[in-house]
Amino acid sequence: MMALDARLRAARATLPALLRLSAAQRDASVRAMAAQLRAQCAAILAANAVDLAAAQAAQRTPALLDRLRLDEARIEALAKALETIATLPDPLRDDAPERLRPNGLRVRQVPAPLGVIAMVYEARPNVTADAAALCFKAGNACVLRGGSEARHSNAAIAAALHAALGETGIDPACVMVLDDPDRQLLGALLQRDDLVDLIIPRGGEALIRHVVATSRIPVIRHYQGVCHLYVDRAAELERALRLLINGKTSRPGVCNALECLLVHADIAPRFLPLAVAALQERGVELRGCERTLALADGITAASESDWGREFLDLILAIRVVDDLDSALEHIRRYGSNHTEVIDSADADACARFVREVDASAVVVNASSRFNDGGELGLGAEIGIATSKLHAYGPMGLDALTCRKWVLLGEGQVRT
Amino acid sequence: MMALDARLRAARATLPALLRLSAAQRDASVRAMAAQLRAQCAAILAANAVDLAAAQAAQRTPALLDRLRLDEARIEALAKALETIATLPDPLRDDAPERLRPNGLRVRQVPAPLGVIAMVYEARPNVTADAAALCFKAGNACVLRGGSEARHSNAAIAAALHAALGETGIDPACVMVLDDPDRQLLGALLQRDDLVDLIIPRGGEALIRHVVATSRIPVIRHYQGVCHLYVDRAAELERALRLLINGKTSRPGVCNALECLLVHADIAPRFLPLAVAALQERGVELRGCERTLALADGITAASESDWGREFLDLILAIRVVDDLDSALEHIRRYGSNHTEVIDSADADACARFVREVDASAVVVNASSRFNDGGELGLGAEIGIATSKLHAYGPMGLDALTCRKWVLLGEGQVRT
Repeated sequence: MMALDARLRAARATLPALLRLSAAQRDASVRAMAAQLRAQCAAILAANAVDLAAAQAAQRTPALLDRLRLDEARIEALAKALETIATLPDPLRDDAPERLRPNGLRVRQVPAPLGVIAMVYEARPNVTADAAALCFKAGNACVLRGGSEARHSNAAIAAALHAALGETGIDPACVMVLDDPDRQLLGALLQRDDLVDLIIPRGGEALIRHVVATSRIPVIRHYQGVCHLYVDRAAELERALRLLINGKTSRPGVCNALECLLVHADIAPRFLPLAVAALQERGVELRGCERTLALADGITAASESDWGREFLDLILAIRVVDDLDSALEHIRRYGSNHTEVIDSADADACARFVREVDASAVVVNASSRFNDGGELGLGAEIGIATSKLHAYGPMGLDALTCRKWVLLGEGQVRT
Repeated sequence: MMALDARLRAARATLPALLRLSAAQRDASVRAMAAQLRAQCAAILAANAVDLAAAQAAQRTPALLDRLRLDEARIEALAKALETIATLPDPLRDDAPERLRPNGLRVRQVPAPLGVIAMVYEARPNVTADAAALCFKAGNACVLRGGSEARHSNAAIAAALHAALGETGIDPACVMVLDDPDRQLLGALLQRDDLVDLIIPRGGEALIRHVVATSRIPVIRHYQGVCHLYVDRAAELERALRLLINGKTSRPGVCNALECLLVHADIAPRFLPLAVAALQERGVELRGCERTLALADGITAASESDWGREFLDLILAIRVVDDLDSALEHIRRYGSNHTEVIDSADADACARFVREVDASAVVVNASSRFNDGGELGLGAEIGIATSKLHAYGPMGLDALTCRKWVLLGEGQVRT
């Protein structure tokens, strides 16, 4: 294998040619990627079987094995996702309004690729295809540094992507897979801000914190989703119950699931018995503050560590709060800047919640589960940012571009 | 002085109250800052005299002394700049279009402050007032860590700003001045991504590289302005000459000044003699490639280190290139992603230059000197970013905000 430096340089060297491709050419290549994934399905599954056997022998967790496992249906879903990406609007479309300056200069901001984007992820081979297609469609080269557990799967998927790029006349080096079984390259990669423009880590919080702590390349971060539902004094109880059940139980392992319920003290005596019964019926373990315990049965006492905790499981923390200010204070202290929900019929309370809550999505009278690129109309997402620089919330194709200024003149000079 | 941790926490603690201020309240505080700068002019000049005396005793460079020096006119200019900031549109205005999702959810992206912004800068006391006003108007708290040479000046300016904040009912901790004469706090500051959202370093390249290498907080970077003018085969000679003279000589010490001239070989025999004569007449030292030397007199031979060099002086590198592709290649290799200019009457050449040059501003038939927040209509700028994440080019008030998603529902849940 080429040294890291040579591989990063090779990826970067493809950028000028990528800039010359039309949107139609880029979309044709993405569709060819989908076709090659289907055509090479057997080879990908064979490689995946090798990874699965090694992971089983190493007694990895069932959750990891599930993320690692591919089958025909999952590869078909991956191919379909790429075909969808090919139908999305061109993120490099030059449709910004032009402004005329007093001196006659015409100025506008035009989308441009970010350059070389490195994805650092764990045992999800689907990220390999998804991220490659999204980066490529936005005119970027990508460096894919996946987890060692998926190395054979990633190599097989990359072979399919490279075949597609080759047959559409594009240098396959623009999708550079970095095989790094011993984590020997990661540290060096994170220092190369001369060759890499952005790092997007996807995986557990430990991985992301490691990347943030050691990278000199900008990092788009997503640590946790500790999402709260605040049931206001002016809540509509039936609606709040629906949001609570959907937010907590529809898919408890994802980042936009609810982890904590905050209930206004005035409505708690009416709402909490309903909520507790509905959640217990659905097998949710409840951990409540003292006031919660006084209003319903079968709840264990919450400890300090239950506030701000991402359970990713059928567990919910519950706290009764004095008022909206107390709810805002709790969210400021324990929230994760991901998704926060209010249920209220009081327009002023909703307006304050929207203005004062610092989260990538602030949701009024709807489920937390809607903080998702597809649900918000982005078509596809490469991740959700809970840091605020460059992107905040789901990142679609547009978030993989920047905007450069273009100035059109007729000889103007500055006096 | 409070410990760093306590100071950062105090600054951060002001954020909820800042979020509740109306645009009119924020603007009134910025105008009060201007008034206090005028009212405390004598105290600021006295403090500045202490700094100047120390810098003279330490035999600092004339350039540093000039940046450090304040006088009544400079303080008046600073006050006027703040009054201008107060007149600019509110960066937190909620005017984004709302989109209706198929399930009836109404979604939009609303500007929100970034949070706590730390400025790390050198001996420019004007940055203290300017940055504080810009950050504050966008709803952010700021931490101002200026150079030790300006510490008395910065403290005096901060006292004026704090008086203005206090008299308009705002906690002065939202403008937190960090006195760090021995650079003891900087290292610790750059690790506090739990309390600080963004670092903006302003100053020499060494300072910026140090911050990028050690910060775990996102950094907006601006290393250098190595700006090229490419005179195409289809250039208009008189116009190109005007752009060249304005770009090189109107203010050679700034980042959007020209550092290198690239001339298409077909037009070089006609253009270079004119250009060389005009530049020599204005005292510009010229360093040319071999082909340049063959076409004009009085030019020294350029060495490899002259390409990609930010002279910040009346010195210009000149290279004759075979064609547009060679010019693009030179800019890719030696450019600094700041400002690049083409002079050409050929629409295709201009379109390729605009598309393929990776710079915060790509300028067609106008001077490089227009890459400036004021000239582009931003009203005021806090810096120019040559990194592409979050902002690329001049950063105005809007670049000091992020956009959070707001979802308005009527009980929608995800199925």
